[in-house]
Order: sequence, then structure tokens, then C-alpha cells
Amino acid sequence: LNQEQKIVIIGCGAGGGTAAQFAKKQHRKSKILILEKGKYPQYSKCGLPYVLSGVIPKLSDLFEFSEEWFKKAGITLSTNTLVDKIDVNKKKVIAKKDDEIIEESYDLLIISTGSKPFIPPIKNIFLKDKLIDGVFSIRTIDDIKKIQNSVKKGKRAVVIGAGFIGLEIADNLNKIGINVKVVEALPQILLTTFDEDMSKIIYNKISEKIDIILNSTVTKIETKNGKINQLLIKNNKTNIEQKIITDFLILAVGCRPEVSLAKNIGCKIGKTGGIIVNEKCETNIKNIYAVGDCTEFLDFVTKRPVQIGLGSIAVRQAITAGINASGGNYLMPKGVLQTRTSKFFGLEIAGVGPTMDFLISDKIVTATFKGFSLPPYFPGGKPISLKVIADKKSGKIISAQAVGNNAAQRINSFATAILAEMTIEDFKKLETAYSPAVAPTIDIVTIVCDIISKKLKIK
Amino acid sequence: LNQEQKIVIIGCGAGGGTAAQFAKKQHRKSKILILEKGKYPQYSKCGLPYVLSGVIPKLSDLFEFSEEWFKKAGITLSTNTLVDKIDVNKKKVIAKKDDEIIEESYDLLIISTGSKPFIPPIKNIFLKDKLIDGVFSIRTIDDIKKIQNSVKKGKRAVVIGAGFIGLEIADNLNKIGINVKVVEALPQILLTTFDEDMSKIIYNKISEKIDIILNSTVTKIETKNGKINQLLIKNNKTNIEQKIITDFLILAVGCRPEVSLAKNIGCKIGKTGGIIVNEKCETNIKNIYAVGDCTEFLDFVTKRPVQIGLGSIAVRQAITAGINASGGNYLMPKGVLQTRTSKFFGLEIAGVGPTMDFLISDKIVTATFKGFSLPPYFPGGKPISLKVIADKKSGKIISAQAVGNNAAQRINSFATAILAEMTIEDFKKLETAYSPAVAPTIDIVTIVCDIISKKLKIK
Repeated sequence: LNQEQKIVIIGCGAGGGTAAQFAKKQHRKSKILILEKGKYPQYSKCGLPYVLSGVIPKLSDLFEFSEEWFKKAGITLSTNTLVDKIDVNKKKVIAKKDDEIIEESYDLLIISTGSKPFIPPIKNIFLKDKLIDGVFSIRTIDDIKKIQNSVKKGKRAVVIGAGFIGLEIADNLNKIGINVKVVEALPQILLTTFDEDMSKIIYNKISEKIDIILNSTVTKIETKNGKINQLLIKNNKTNIEQKIITDFLILAVGCRPEVSLAKNIGCKIGKTGGIIVNEKCETNIKNIYAVGDCTEFLDFVTKRPVQIGLGSIAVRQAITAGINASGGNYLMPKGVLQTRTSKFFGLEIAGVGPTMDFLISDKIVTATFKGFSLPPYFPGGKPISLKVIADKKSGKIISAQAVGNNAAQRINSFATAILAEMTIEDFKKLETAYSPAVAPTIDIVTIVCDIISKKLKIK
Repeated sequence: LNQEQKIVIIGCGAGGGTAAQFAKKQHRKSKILILEKGKYPQYSKCGLPYVLSGVIPKLSDLFEFSEEWFKKAGITLSTNTLVDKIDVNKKKVIAKKDDEIIEESYDLLIISTGSKPFIPPIKNIFLKDKLIDGVFSIRTIDDIKKIQNSVKKGKRAVVIGAGFIGLEIADNLNKIGINVKVVEALPQILLTTFDEDMSKIIYNKISEKIDIILNSTVTKIETKNGKINQLLIKNNKTNIEQKIITDFLILAVGCRPEVSLAKNIGCKIGKTGGIIVNEKCETNIKNIYAVGDCTEFLDFVTKRPVQIGLGSIAVRQAITAGINASGGNYLMPKGVLQTRTSKFFGLEIAGVGPTMDFLISDKIVTATFKGFSLPPYFPGGKPISLKVIADKKSGKIISAQAVGNNAAQRINSFATAILAEMTIEDFKKLETAYSPAVAPTIDIVTIVCDIISKKLKIK
């Protein structure tokens, strides 16, 4: 290990910022430089929706680590610095800071370039290469600033995309009295994260509070005085078109890994479009790591590559890359569990592992159970619906989805079981914590497994 | 398997009642008879404290399964039936129902006789073999009825014993404006379930709301008109005595396994005073099972025998014994985790596995961490303190204790990890569910393990 190695990190999101911290912790003499194209220090992207409603009062509340903080930690953060090129042979990066071109050599490089929002092909969505007035994506502080200006002016919003972020945005706009409609091209909400049956439970709950238009695509934006005014929405099944008047439109249809720098130097890009990394978060190029939304890694159970889109995984990759870049030896687990959660319209939901769409239906067994957080005789018990999927042959737990009370912490128990490769037979006997005021004698996390256990015996 | 075997169960608590249900489910032709000495059908003993405050409105709310329910399920429940003797050779039990002597033959017998409250040796506690007026234990519906009568009359109560039940009682009395003091002989509250440092956190919280007198023993009851009036309390360290005026006294100093029937027929009794059972819940006598508070079983980690005192374990043993008695084949895990929780004075606490007192201090590594339920920038995050103990040599997780937000569900993740015999190194990499409104990027369940991990490396 070079005593004074220089680690350059491209991007100061959760991935880059965390990698810097752990690289420094691992080896105090490592020189660490973060090049961030934006003007802000490290902030929470996941917190952005909550600023719209004021649940998080100000955008600056989202700043997690300031330039001063990094400075004190012995890390140099250079904002407004856009990396143009990586020179692998000379081991340096060429960047533009403000209007100046700078070159920085590196011993080790960590790419954390994140992802860019996907812009759906809607007629009139662009005006001179820019999103037309009233149309917003939601990836950055500046996006939220623009939406906040619109919020002042209008009272009707359409969100495209009923994934986690689309529904979080819808909830936060709804909270301040905006009339929100969500348009989703697919026949269900939360398609990649929840199965149809569980998604339906969530849909039924939240469609009491806002309109969700399924199976539908926004095909055209009609403007008035150069500003959005009306949307043309087509039902993909019936082809029937409808018009919806709106004051603004928010795009929440997912992101694409930002890999242009990596691609140019020959980093292998996987099927999902993300940079391929190993358990050490190394790319195929020596001394170059990649972490976060710009990468892909294997699903723990299916071993199928998945595009990283969760801050929780980005941070864990960043810890791994940071430690390894500074001479440590740290491995990610054999794959990602994709443990996920959100809360909107008062409903907590969570999941771990692949949904049915990524599994072969005759190789799995599933069970769904609706129970309560407290014993029947204790007042105040709250409903929870839980679905679990197991492998028919091995009996191992593959994935779980929960809607309702303490969904996330319950899913964490399943995440533990999946990481430990536990079988249904072992997990169903888990002694869960019981006390009338806290939880039932047998928590539904094991009740649902007992149901699967019976199905596994019949198979 | 005898097609029409007869299973007799002694006791209709959570153990006996559950065993009956699972025996019937396992084999519809099993004839099942429950002999219960009390006059009530199966009810929740754990719910008793909450009736005092009215959180659970009526005692009858605690009835979980009525005689009619059992009848419909094809199970005979005979209440007011006290078993006097088991005749192992003739395979029958002799009991007294009301004033009649009855005999019932059995093919298989399940002993679920529970436990009896320990009565501490306090001067004047008995009057003619009965607890003196104003002194109550808390094991049965009738105990609560008696306390309810006293509640009407008095405004000052003393609870002896600062374990789960003592503190639950204190909380529920406090809720209705009774001035409660808790007297504990030991230097800390919750001694067998929480380590000193964690116990201190709980103590500091709840001693804001009630008086807890540690290191102290009630030595004498002074009466007035044949009723409790004043207590003499001695500090075990200083020997200083004080007098406390009280209207009633509640004994919550633990229970002793009720094993007289089992002892008489030669069932092996273990060190803790409970009937020794194996993973099938069999006693040493053929065709005789035992479950619940009258038994002991091995701790999962230490393999040391522990007296069963948790309803959650009783129910899991009952499932095991019921299935096996009806010809099935079902095993308990290799030991009990003793996952436990409670909530009092607004504070949720939980634990799993042995406390430090049952471990050899130079063979373990511990870490304690105080974190929050949400990311720092998200309003409303609640504190959680978490302690984890791991084995120094193997790195396996031994036990965990939590105080605060969602303590029980967080402890369930540790229970899963302990059952799966996971190491700190594996568990600390767990992808916990993250979303700003629900949980931090890295939940404290893994943060605390990362601290232990560092200590394990130094060892």
C-alpha cells in the first residue's frame, strides 16, 4: 500500500461522499479528492419529496456533509467540477471547474456518477432542448426549487410513474392541497417492487386519497402561452384518449445509470446498463472502482444482474469501495437483497428480494396472510399484510413483501433470514418477541411461513 | 398411531389450550380432553395488568377460547377439575370435579400445570394460611378481581419486584392515578432480562414517573383493623429501615414451576425446578409430555437449562407437544432464544438471548449504541438504545437488548440472526430497509454490529 496514495472520487452523492469517508477512516494518510459537478455538497436525494410538503422544512436541511465538514475530515471536495475524461494510462482525470480546465492524477479512482432521470417520449415535452415550462424531473435540489415555484402558481399536478418516488411526490403534493393525479403505463402500481396482489392492497388504500390512472400513457402536452396546460392521455388497453388540464407535470419514470465516462475508458457495462462491479466494487479496469446508481450487481437469490437504484445499497457499496481503495479488504455479500421501504398516504410498505416477475412460478411456493400488530384482545392493533416466497426444492426463503404496521422492521427480519439462507422450516419456529401491548404471541412473520410450510409438504 | 387415541391435557392455560388445538389439527380422530382446575376457559394471563387501567376494558375480554369454542373444535374442556394423581401404570388420571372424584384414562398425557407465584417471607404476610387483606399476587383473573376491589378503596400501592410484570402492573396502576412505589431487592430493575447498563437507561426513564426503591426488601407488614396499613422496608446495603404507608401490596417476585403431579410420577425435575423435556417436549416418562411454565429447556446459546417463563415459548412448546402427541413429528429448535418485550410508561423494551450474568466476560465482546429511528434530517425520529453481545472466538451473535422505538421488531431481526447462528461479520452487512420517512440508511441494528466488528478485530 502506497503510504500517500491519492484517491479521486467522481460524484459526491451518497455513494461518493460515503466512499470518501470510509477511505479516510481506513487509512488516515490517503489523500482524497471528490469532484462533484453540482454546486451543492453531499445531500439526501431521498429526502427531496418531503421538502415539497414542508415535512422537511428547507432544502438546506438535506445537506448531510458540508464542504467544511469534509475539509475537517481531511477530504477535499471540489464542487462545480465536471469530469470530462478519464485518462487510464496516465492515471488522471480531466475536468472543468467553473471555466477552468483542471487535471488531477489518481492512484485509485472511484466512479460514483449516479443516474439521470429517464425522459419519456411525450410530444412537446422539450422546448429548445429543455423540458418545457411546467414539466419537471425530480433528481436534484434544483428540480425541487423549480417545482416549488410552480406549486405557488398552480393547484393541479400530474405525476407520471407510480413507483416509490412518484407516490412519495404525490403524497407530499397532496399534503399541501394540490390536486394530484398519478398516471402509470403499467396495469399495477409499484411493478418492480411489489407483486400484483400486494400492489392491489396498496392501490386500494391510496386510491381513496388520489386518482391513479393505470394502463395509461401521457402522449402529448398541450401548451398555452409557452407553458403546460393540458395533457393527452391514452389508455394502452382500450386506446381511448382523455385530456387532463394540469398546472405541472412531474416525471418519475425511473433513472438510467450515468456511465458515459466509464464507458469511454472501457469499463464493462452490464445488461441493465450499469457498470459491472465485483464484490470488492472493482470494475474490470485496474484501480478503478464504481459504486451506486451507475452500477449493477447480482441479486442475492437469483444471481441475475440488477441495476442499483437504492441509496441503502449505494452506501454499502461505497463503504466497500472506500475501504478497499485505502488498502483494506472488505467484501459485499454475494448479492444485493434490495431491501426497500417507503411510507405514503399514512401507509408503510416494505419488501426484500425479487418479486414473482423475476422468478419461475413452478419453482416457488408463496403465501399471503393478513394479521394484526397486537393480540385480538388488545385495543389499537393495526393491520399488516405479508407475502412470502420460498424455493420449492430447498425450502429457502426467497423474498417477502409487507404492507402496514412496522412493515420495514418486519421485512428486516426476512432480510436477515434470506442473507443467512434460512429455510421456511427453521424460520417459522422463530421465537418472536411477545407482549400484549407490543406484539402477538406468534408474530405474523412466522404465521405466514407456517402456511408456506404446509404447502411445501404437499408439493 | 392409534386411530382413536385419547390425549389428556392437564391445564388450560396458553400451553394446554394450544396443545389441544394442534393435537386436534394434526389428527382429527384424536380424542382430546383438557382438565382445568380453575373456573375459566383459556384466557391471556399476560393481558391481566392492562385490565387494571381499563386499557383492556373487561376481564372477559381476555378469554381467548371459550368452552363452546373448544366443543365446536371437537375438544372437551372440563373446568373446575383438579387433578389429584396420575397413575402411570394404568394410564389414567384421578381428578376432583366440583365434589366428585373422576377417573380418565389416557393414551398420551400433556402436563401444562404452569407455575405458582412466589410468596416472599414477609412478617405478617399470612393470616390463617391466606394472604392478609390488601396483599395480592397477580397470576389469575381472581387476583385481578381482588385488586380491582382494593383500587376502589385506596390510592397508594406498593409493588414488590421490578421485573416485566411488576413494572407493567405499576404502569397500569399509575395510569388510573394510584400512587405506586416499586420495591426491588436487587441493585437494578429487570435483572434477569437486561444488563446493568441497559437497565439503567430504562430506570432513568421510568423513575421520572414512579418511585423505584432499589436494594430494598419489605420485611414486615403492619396492619390496622386486620388490613395492611404500613410496610417496613429495609435497605440491603445500609440496613437502614423505612416505613411506607400503603393501601395495598402486590407481589411480583416471580413464579415457581408447579410440578407436584409430575414429581410424584417420577418426571425428572431440573436445576431450575422445572420438568426436563426434550426437543419433542417429551418428559422422561413414556407417553407423557410437558409444556410451558412448569418445564425447563436449554438456552439456545449457552445450553444452560432455563425455566420457561414466557407465554411465547409455552405456545411453541404446546404446538410441538400437540403435534407429536397426535402422531406427528415436530421439533423445537435446539434451545430457547427467550425473545422478550414489554412496554410501560411509554417505553418499548425488548431483548433476546442471555444477559452478561449468564456469560463469561472474557469470552464475549459487547457494544452499545444510541441512535434514532429516522435520518437526522427527518423530523420525528425517536431514540433507540441497542446493546449486542457476540462470542469473541466465533464472532457469532449471542444476544441483544433494545430500549426505544420498535425495540421488539428490531430484536426479532437479532433473534433471526441468533437462530441462524450468524456472525457479526455477516449480519453487519445486512441491507436494512431505508426510506427517510421510515428508517435511516443504515439501521442501528447493523451500526452496533459494526462497532463490535472492530472490537473483534482488536481482540
